Amino acid sequence: MAGTVKDMLATYPADLGAIDQTKLTRCIEACIACAQACTACADACLSEGMVGDLTKCIRTDMDCADICTATAAVLSRHTGYDANITAAMLRACAIACKACGDECASHAGMHEHCRICAEACRACEQACNDLLAALG
Amino acid sequence: MAGTVKDMLATYPADLGAIDQTKLTRCIEACIACAQACTACADACLSEGMVGDLTKCIRTDMDCADICTATAAVLSRHTGYDANITAAMLRACAIACKACGDECASHAGMHEHCRICAEACRACEQACNDLLAALG
Amino acid sequence: MAGTVKDMLATYPADLGAIDQTKLTRCIEACIACAQACTACADACLSEGMVGDLTKCIRTDMDCADICTATAAVLSRHTGYDANITAAMLRACAIACKACGDECASHAGMHEHCRICAEACRACEQACNDLLAALG
Amino acid sequence: MAGTVKDMLATYPADLGAIDQTKLTRCIEACIACAQACTACADACLSEGMVGDLTKCIRTDMDCADICTATAAVLSRHTGYDANITAAMLRACAIACKACGDECASHAGMHEHCRICAEACRACEQACNDLLAALG
Repeated sequence: MAGTVKDMLATYPADLGAIDQTKLTRCIEACIACAQACTACADACLSEGMVGDLTKCIRTDMDCADICTATAAVLSRHTGYDANITAAMLRACAIACKACGDECASHAGMHEHCRICAEACRACEQACNDLLAALG
Repeated sequence: MAGTVKDMLATYPADLGAIDQTKLTRCIEACIACAQACTACADACLSEGMVGDLTKCIRTDMDCADICTATAAVLSRHTGYDANITAAMLRACAIACKACGDECASHAGMHEHCRICAEACRACEQACNDLLAALG
Repeated sequence: MAGTVKDMLATYPADLGAIDQTKLTRCIEACIACAQACTACADACLSEGMVGDLTKCIRTDMDCADICTATAAVLSRHTGYDANITAAMLRACAIACKACGDECASHAGMHEHCRICAEACRACEQACNDLLAALG
Repeated sequence: MAGTVKDMLATYPADLGAIDQTKLTRCIEACIACAQACTACADACLSEGMVGDLTKCIRTDMDCADICTATAAVLSRHTGYDANITAAMLRACAIACKACGDECASHAGMHEHCRICAEACRACEQACNDLLAALG
């Protein structure tokens, strides 16, 4: 994906408005990476012997994956931009990433997939909050 | 889908907490119906001769479909319930449905698919707000 | 959702071609209902005490939900119709529903959510195969 | 996303079987990149003055995005692996990427976003076919 998000943004044929394109690119990339990590982490948790201790983690992973995927799609569109929708999704995504990052971090000592997934969640939470702040 | 959402909810094996099951069922059903209507409306707009006047409608339809689909999935899970995630998605979904309902309503006089889609958006916005109020 | 899928189809402004609209409507409705049932079943499995015995069921539920959701979206679009894409997704969806229906059916005696989900999978598999046969 | 897909795969706690992990990683990354490019291309097309000439492109972009997203999710799961589901989705994804790549390529001379999106589609089609061949 190296560069594709940025390249697609650069070729958008109309006015992108005042949005910070670096933060937007970073946020789309973070959402996409987090969605994949959460899907993979939920599945890795399912294959742990102690899956019974990981059910909240699996559920939060699934929510976070769905919300990050929807957020990435909303952020990839610019036509007929509606700041209210973008802001509401960024807020929901930051909340889901915070919850999932906390949950995964609590298992990070035992499960490497939870440690990596927590990092992806933290990065996405930060990217969402950065973009939200830049929306003004 | 007649009854399946309700039947699945009734067979959840653990405690559903204090959530209003009637409002929850109605909200899941409304999200799913709205997502489908928005996907179909975006496509119908693409086949109108005056597609150039409908680009904001198409974009808002696509956002609304993605957000409704993610909201329906989050609402269909109860394990390790996190009220913050649920509330944030209900808020985002209500905002997207309001925006999409308004946009579609403005074309409803000319395009029957926009009229039906606006109704689905209004119903989903209401169901999200009703459930949000019931979360306390 | 009573009627919305059919109503949206009826208002499509261009030629729908020779497709069987009754089978198309039924298939979209079945895909949507199956996706929701599978999402709910995966979550219900997570809350069973014997979750360790249900990991394959949870995984297949998640695949089936994702594939049914994508299939419903593809089937809800008619502009620039490509029979190859539609047929390939119907085949993938029928295969996922068959696998998920079989897996859920094997737990149906113990878990009511698996029994209901298996029915939704069977109905969707049948609807996909019926529409596939009608594509010619 | 640099490395996250590969890192998550490397931490999966159970047996991955005989699957080619390099091709699997590349295919997941290609699906994710293609889904984002197609979502952005559909939106960029909406903002072209000549949107009326791009309706088939927009529709195919949307199908391709939905199918690539579902394929990436299926490929990110390994628990209870079912080769039939994986193969069927890889086939559907390759078909959608071929159709979308062809459609976008036909507009590549006029629209830079179509040119970049066509490249992402070609790369994803190739990655799906490579992984499919490696499944045996």
